[in-house]
Amino acid sequence: MREVFQQELAEVQSRLVQIAELVEIAIQQATTAFRTSDVSLAEQVIESNERVEQMAAELDELTIDILARQQPVASDLRLMVGALRMGSSLERMADLAEHIAQLARYRYPESAIPQGLRKTFARMGELDAKIAGKLVELLRTQDPTFIDDIRDIDDAIDELHAKVFEKVLSDKVSTDTTGVVDATLASRYHERFGDHAVNISRQVNYFLRGALL
Amino acid sequence: MREVFQQELAEVQSRLVQIAELVEIAIQQATTAFRTSDVSLAEQVIESNERVEQMAAELDELTIDILARQQPVASDLRLMVGALRMGSSLERMADLAEHIAQLARYRYPESAIPQGLRKTFARMGELDAKIAGKLVELLRTQDPTFIDDIRDIDDAIDELHAKVFEKVLSDKVSTDTTGVVDATLASRYHERFGDHAVNISRQVNYFLRGALL
Repeated sequence: MREVFQQELAEVQSRLVQIAELVEIAIQQATTAFRTSDVSLAEQVIESNERVEQMAAELDELTIDILARQQPVASDLRLMVGALRMGSSLERMADLAEHIAQLARYRYPESAIPQGLRKTFARMGELDAKIAGKLVELLRTQDPTFIDDIRDIDDAIDELHAKVFEKVLSDKVSTDTTGVVDATLASRYHERFGDHAVNISRQVNYFLRGALL
Repeated sequence: MREVFQQELAEVQSRLVQIAELVEIAIQQATTAFRTSDVSLAEQVIESNERVEQMAAELDELTIDILARQQPVASDLRLMVGALRMGSSLERMADLAEHIAQLARYRYPESAIPQGLRKTFARMGELDAKIAGKLVELLRTQDPTFIDDIRDIDDAIDELHAKVFEKVLSDKVSTDTTGVVDATLASRYHERFGDHAVNISRQVNYFLRGALL
């Protein structure tokens, strides 16, 4: 029974890695589409979200099925509950990548990024892609050093999020009302993306060290 | 065993109702504080969030404990998984109420609501409070008519969310950049609050009718 359970755990982990890889591609493409006003890339991201939703739903089903058949207790049970939560967070990360792509599509052929904020959003996009990459590595290797990396990157994203508002409100950015709305929403989406990566890394940490940070 | 499980299910349900009641109070107070620039009410909301977080964490613990001891299968297992998800969504709703209260506090003694949007936000705040009230009733009574009510109210919130952007972008609203940023974030928070109520109502519906809508 224990051996079967270990195999099933490995399957859950492997599916989490697969979903995280799709999320990494989605955020890379979404932030590129946002930066370069690439509408066909934006549409690709929007279409790809369905696949993530489907895989997350299948992972939920698998996890519930394992809970029913294996009846795990203690740390094994918490691992299964954690898998449900990580699946939800990954799904939400894909939604946020889709929201960023939608902003790029709405404003096409204009850019959704106001003048004076291009560098800030380019950097935020890079960090969102980087945090997704670290998340894939964390889920794949279970190496806790990635947990610290994820927290550091999230801190840097939060600083850029604050900087966007600072710049928008300081009149250093010349933009119309549409630009202010877009920048506000885009910055919020980038910031929430990082938060979810931290949530997932905390779940992993919980299992690795036996306690929530 | 079955009888004990029924008692524990009743306990989970009762805790969900208690948390939902706190969320209803939080959103009532947050939207009132936002509308009237009442900074002490805003601070009350911000402080009260800790209580919701604690109760949601305790509900998680209880649910995991029931899973471990009772080893439920089939619909009982799904009920427990659903309770974990509903707890997360309620916690997130309380966070969004806190975010709305924080906007009111940041701008005090100014109003966070630009001229020309007061009626729209007053209505959105009423609908957020109303959807929270319906959610409490749904969780308490399990009466599926509340599911339709929640969906209808969420549709109305989504319309107001679109209307905020329409008004902001049409120059019918006279405001500075700070006002545009605040209105954008506030509208997003109000809208997401409704989404989470719908998510929870879908979980309940799933158990009542045996299928996701």
